[in-house]
Amino acid sequence: MHTLARTIEILERTPGVLRSLLLGVSDFWTRGNYGDGTWSAAQVVGHLIVGERDDWLPRLRRILQHGERVPFDPFPHDATVDSSDTPIASLLGEFETLRHENLRELRALNLSPADLERTGSHPAFGRVTAAQLLATWCVHDLHHLRQISLAMAWQYRDAVGPWHEYLNTLKR
Amino acid sequence: MHTLARTIEILERTPGVLRSLLLGVSDFWTRGNYGDGTWSAAQVVGHLIVGERDDWLPRLRRILQHGERVPFDPFPHDATVDSSDTPIASLLGEFETLRHENLRELRALNLSPADLERTGSHPAFGRVTAAQLLATWCVHDLHHLRQISLAMAWQYRDAVGPWHEYLNTLKR
Repeated sequence: MHTLARTIEILERTPGVLRSLLLGVSDFWTRGNYGDGTWSAAQVVGHLIVGERDDWLPRLRRILQHGERVPFDPFPHDATVDSSDTPIASLLGEFETLRHENLRELRALNLSPADLERTGSHPAFGRVTAAQLLATWCVHDLHHLRQISLAMAWQYRDAVGPWHEYLNTLKR
Repeated sequence: MHTLARTIEILERTPGVLRSLLLGVSDFWTRGNYGDGTWSAAQVVGHLIVGERDDWLPRLRRILQHGERVPFDPFPHDATVDSSDTPIASLLGEFETLRHENLRELRALNLSPADLERTGSHPAFGRVTAAQLLATWCVHDLHHLRQISLAMAWQYRDAVGPWHEYLNTLKR
């Protein structure tokens, strides 16, 4: 299977995964973080929204239009939207809409294996390929799914009592 | 909100979350582990199946029937079914069926706050409450969702190129 098809298998599923996990659960699960300076599940969804807007597709377009001549704009690791007053359903819907549009654009580009080897310039570590950018988009989804699961699990760190000892997720 | 209702919010969602994440993706994502002696996504689903059969509800019944007089049967941490020849759709379906039956039984028990404080005896660390057992069931789901996401992300550990540096999920 073409690596782009594999990447899309994950990217197209993430909005549904997050909806299954978060839609309709109480704020107890979605608004609590896992320690000072960490994000709640809702804040992670906000971060994914910003990535859809400002990070992944803009960087892919930059590679295709300018190659390494114009480096990517910096994208802050900690970018998120102010989600404190936004219902989780709205955040999930916004993410889903943006991801859907971005995947439509990605598919329409009909990238060839040669296109995937085209290079751009990352502001911190220089030359990267379009394929690496797309693989990172995909791993970034899975990483933040892990973070959301951690933030949720953390809300029960005391409720599990002595089982805390067996649950690596609750140790950090 | 009653703590039991919160716990059920997570337990009832997990089969759908796993279906959204895993159904229809290629074996590339579901059959690879993240290092020697670790599990693939499919093996984690197998572990969740064994837990539904042998761990959570049997221990709850033990508490309600025998209190601390009869300790729980030991449950091995590494129990899983042999999933190598089983399609992921079958594994997901089996897990969903078992979870559905277990939640039906849990709801039918109609546990009161006093019931949730009833105690049993864990073979390793002694006295635990029914509420702690149920909270652990829930965190166990979230822990293994994290593990599945890790096993999937791991398949792209080289594909991301220099972005490896930024992706904590790929460091272990």
